[in-house]
Amino acid sequence: MITRLSKLFVRTLRDDPADAEVPSHRWLVRAGYIRRTAPGIYTWLPLGLRVLQKVEQVVREEMDAMGAQEVRFPALLPREPYEATNRWTEYGPNLFRLKDRKGADYLLGPTHEEMFTLLVKDLYSSYKDLPLSLYQIQTKYRDEARPRAGLLRGREFVMKDSYSFDVDDAGLAASYQAHRDAYVRIFNRLGLEYVIVKATSGAMGGSASEEFLAVAETGEDTFVRSPGGYAANVEAVQVTPPPEQDASAIDPIQEIDTPGTGTIVELVDAVNARFPRPDRPWTAADTLKNVVFKLTFPDGKSELLVVGLPGDRDVDLKRLEAAITPAEAVAVGEEDFAANPGLVKGYIGPVRLEDGTAALQLGLKGALKVRYLTDPRVVAGTSWITGANRADTHQLNVVAGRDFVSDGVIDVAEVRAGDPAPDGSGPLSLARGIEMGHIFQLGRKYAEALGLKVLDENGKLVTVTMGSYGVGVSRAVAAVAENSCDDRGLAWPKELAPFDVQVVATGKGEELLAAAEQLAAELSAAGLDVLLDDRKASPGVKFTDAEILGMPLAVVVGRGLADGVVELRERASGERIEVAVTAAVAEVIARVRG
Amino acid sequence: MITRLSKLFVRTLRDDPADAEVPSHRWLVRAGYIRRTAPGIYTWLPLGLRVLQKVEQVVREEMDAMGAQEVRFPALLPREPYEATNRWTEYGPNLFRLKDRKGADYLLGPTHEEMFTLLVKDLYSSYKDLPLSLYQIQTKYRDEARPRAGLLRGREFVMKDSYSFDVDDAGLAASYQAHRDAYVRIFNRLGLEYVIVKATSGAMGGSASEEFLAVAETGEDTFVRSPGGYAANVEAVQVTPPPEQDASAIDPIQEIDTPGTGTIVELVDAVNARFPRPDRPWTAADTLKNVVFKLTFPDGKSELLVVGLPGDRDVDLKRLEAAITPAEAVAVGEEDFAANPGLVKGYIGPVRLEDGTAALQLGLKGALKVRYLTDPRVVAGTSWITGANRADTHQLNVVAGRDFVSDGVIDVAEVRAGDPAPDGSGPLSLARGIEMGHIFQLGRKYAEALGLKVLDENGKLVTVTMGSYGVGVSRAVAAVAENSCDDRGLAWPKELAPFDVQVVATGKGEELLAAAEQLAAELSAAGLDVLLDDRKASPGVKFTDAEILGMPLAVVVGRGLADGVVELRERASGERIEVAVTAAVAEVIARVRG
Repeated sequence: MITRLSKLFVRTLRDDPADAEVPSHRWLVRAGYIRRTAPGIYTWLPLGLRVLQKVEQVVREEMDAMGAQEVRFPALLPREPYEATNRWTEYGPNLFRLKDRKGADYLLGPTHEEMFTLLVKDLYSSYKDLPLSLYQIQTKYRDEARPRAGLLRGREFVMKDSYSFDVDDAGLAASYQAHRDAYVRIFNRLGLEYVIVKATSGAMGGSASEEFLAVAETGEDTFVRSPGGYAANVEAVQVTPPPEQDASAIDPIQEIDTPGTGTIVELVDAVNARFPRPDRPWTAADTLKNVVFKLTFPDGKSELLVVGLPGDRDVDLKRLEAAITPAEAVAVGEEDFAANPGLVKGYIGPVRLEDGTAALQLGLKGALKVRYLTDPRVVAGTSWITGANRADTHQLNVVAGRDFVSDGVIDVAEVRAGDPAPDGSGPLSLARGIEMGHIFQLGRKYAEALGLKVLDENGKLVTVTMGSYGVGVSRAVAAVAENSCDDRGLAWPKELAPFDVQVVATGKGEELLAAAEQLAAELSAAGLDVLLDDRKASPGVKFTDAEILGMPLAVVVGRGLADGVVELRERASGERIEVAVTAAVAEVIARVRG
Repeated sequence: MITRLSKLFVRTLRDDPADAEVPSHRWLVRAGYIRRTAPGIYTWLPLGLRVLQKVEQVVREEMDAMGAQEVRFPALLPREPYEATNRWTEYGPNLFRLKDRKGADYLLGPTHEEMFTLLVKDLYSSYKDLPLSLYQIQTKYRDEARPRAGLLRGREFVMKDSYSFDVDDAGLAASYQAHRDAYVRIFNRLGLEYVIVKATSGAMGGSASEEFLAVAETGEDTFVRSPGGYAANVEAVQVTPPPEQDASAIDPIQEIDTPGTGTIVELVDAVNARFPRPDRPWTAADTLKNVVFKLTFPDGKSELLVVGLPGDRDVDLKRLEAAITPAEAVAVGEEDFAANPGLVKGYIGPVRLEDGTAALQLGLKGALKVRYLTDPRVVAGTSWITGANRADTHQLNVVAGRDFVSDGVIDVAEVRAGDPAPDGSGPLSLARGIEMGHIFQLGRKYAEALGLKVLDENGKLVTVTMGSYGVGVSRAVAAVAENSCDDRGLAWPKELAPFDVQVVATGKGEELLAAAEQLAAELSAAGLDVLLDDRKASPGVKFTDAEILGMPLAVVVGRGLADGVVELRERASGERIEVAVTAAVAEVIARVRG
């Protein structure tokens, strides 16, 4: 097929869109692949849609090849199934909800666990029917608080979601592995540089889960890697707690006056000045910082949470969010401190000294009940400098287990490059990525909530165990663009390019255009998709547009034609070579197919 | 490809779904092609999705072939563009509306005229860019008052919608014709028996429009045909008014007592008994019936409308709806009569006789203002028996133009087989059909409302003229099923069948299954899509299922195998022939490709 640029519905733009934060967004809009319709909602123009359809096709082929069967659910879904699993509520404001003309509640599906579970329940009843894997490539909706980066975080987007159904854990493990293998093939074919990392399961519930992240500086996800091959999304990193320590030689709590030490730095300086330690100076790591958050639950209720962690680390908000989902957290503001005088800003600590004795939990002044969770490093026997719950006052020698016991462990401190890896193989390194795929072993959560059981070999009803697997199809278009674009425009890999080759006719002679037409016709006859720049425009405009549009290969039919040559330009490498006109078709075909 | 029925996600059902009104709905559900998710909202199972995708592919190929370019808009759309054209309001309760987390208004797109208009405005600015045709194959939403008949009238459905953009009327006519030609090719390929009929343009606005109707007894649309080739949706039939008549010899109005004649039949009997006409008896056609409707407008306001038409005809509610859209009409009830004592049920007429003089419009007792529209047959000079706006009283010799003038003409009386055709070629015949496609010359309505102008050859800004064209893609699946199914199940035409052939292994011997596997493998190797019934089930179950599932061709590998033969069964014709095993592959391929 030959498509003429003079007829193609596309305009390249000279200016970046005002809201472009990342290169893929900038170039997909400037190259006329997509247009913004509303925040986080995009229209696919002909070039963009071609790429999207190619991604869909790669995903479809690999899902079919692993034996998954394609179905297609509606996007407009009734409330009841999501009510049964509590997700109608848990999704909170991320869910688009609406009523029909009769007042019945509906939602725009963010993911379809409930619907697949009910469908299988509807049709199947025996272990003989399993294992089963079903998938769909379908439009999904999430009312993101902060849609951003074009297709990377949208509110309407295309996903492939699939679901596996097995009678037992071994079956689920096999279905999970089959999906994992298929995803490896998919992301290899998409030409993405990616890593597979351990992940948390978020609102999905379930146990084992991994993410496929496209490595990208602009990615929203941070992940860690160890020399030994451990890799995890930063939300999923589990800190290895140090061994418990013997605190028998540690002095009792000592209350100290520390005026004007509302920050960790001020506190450490003051303590070093007035209570120096003989062997080495105090550092921020010796302090126990207590940070107060307000949690809001999907039902609208809220409560306070205090996180205690070594003073040299901050709470990582994304790790916190993953740990407390479906609740949402914000750091408390002045008004919350004002409303809770027991919380003395800058001087919060786990020990209540109202009556001079240690407390077993954070029971602050005024009998304020607050959940108190501590970092895994705060093991029994560790000794801390921390707040005394009174202005300008701290405590020394506050020993975990002896002087206080928290309500539990929360592993939400920031992870740093150089931290010891959980696999013991050395220091962690950090990088960023774009979440392209996510695979979960859901287990029986949804099957139990919705009553999906089958008869097993002994005629006994057993609850089915499920997996859930997603690929961000529209997001993949942006991730590949992000991976491959440069400062001149898009640069598609061969598998996803909208056209195999762009033929650029430059110069004014009729014979130049005729030669370009002829070349395009021969390439098309050989089965290639050809974009022919037949516009009346200057060579400069045409070359610039060819680089913005990003076909892997361009053939320039221009001045060289008089000498019997055309120029081949590889978009990604920038390589340019002259080829005899007579050899051009064969050379292009070899490069496209090679 | 071979797909094994033992693994395919499908269950045939023995019972009709409770809400099945039409055969396509019954069989698509019973054969496991679709499942109902909510009223008018369906899930596509693997077999159904294959058919849907084949329809999509046919549509895509023909749209591409005519030079239209594929794009894809979101389904979730902002309110503003639809506000600008007033459709946000005009769609009334048919539109799914929702708010996002920030309270901004959105809708689920029922059709995308506004969005396409704005997109072209966004990118194009010159006559040189036109003509342009864009299309999408996309999920649409309409909150139907009465979703019914499975896929035939759903609330979430797949449509191909396209839009043409031209600088002048001649361009629009050419774009319209190109779409019309493409639609002819599409519906021919789908194997549908269809007619192209004149249509009304409904809420779209615009002028010329035609519908492609699949002929089906169960269709919702009624259309007419004339011997001369005229064809129109019944909503679009325009009655040719009779010539005006000379009323100079007609007596003045005569008021007559007609107690107990609340119906036309009673009235005609009473008048014939007491005021016989010398030449021929009075008939219902001599009476002027006045029917009162309450119109409700999208903005919630309502008003009364009186339709005057010959007493031998009823108002056709679909014709009325088409004539008054976007308002909706209901026949007034007792409470409306009670609230408007000027409307004397059964005795309404156009002439106010309070003061003994004729009125020029329907000004009923109590100065009630009501719009009064009359059938085209009520031309000047025609004389009628009609109500006197007083109980038990009628009037004779009420002459249109002399005694009253209506507020206008409304052509909403029922159309009957035998009525004279508008083309003068003879009597109309009536039939029913399913609306599969609709093509409109929109003109400049949307371009004007949204400011889509381009510079013409003289550098002057001109408003673009548009066409809008739709194909019901998911509806086509049902229409083809409706066209082709019988009392044993589905019977797909070759172009749309989910599989080319079903190989049915019957009997218990291992060698039977092995032979069936071998045959399936050879057919698959030849490029056919094969469904292999490898289940452990009785021949009866397998044959019944094969007929329900409806592949065009089945090969039965059973008892005949001992004699070296298999049986070929054509689903549609019911033809069964025995073929030597050695010749079976060639015979199947010939029939599939033939």
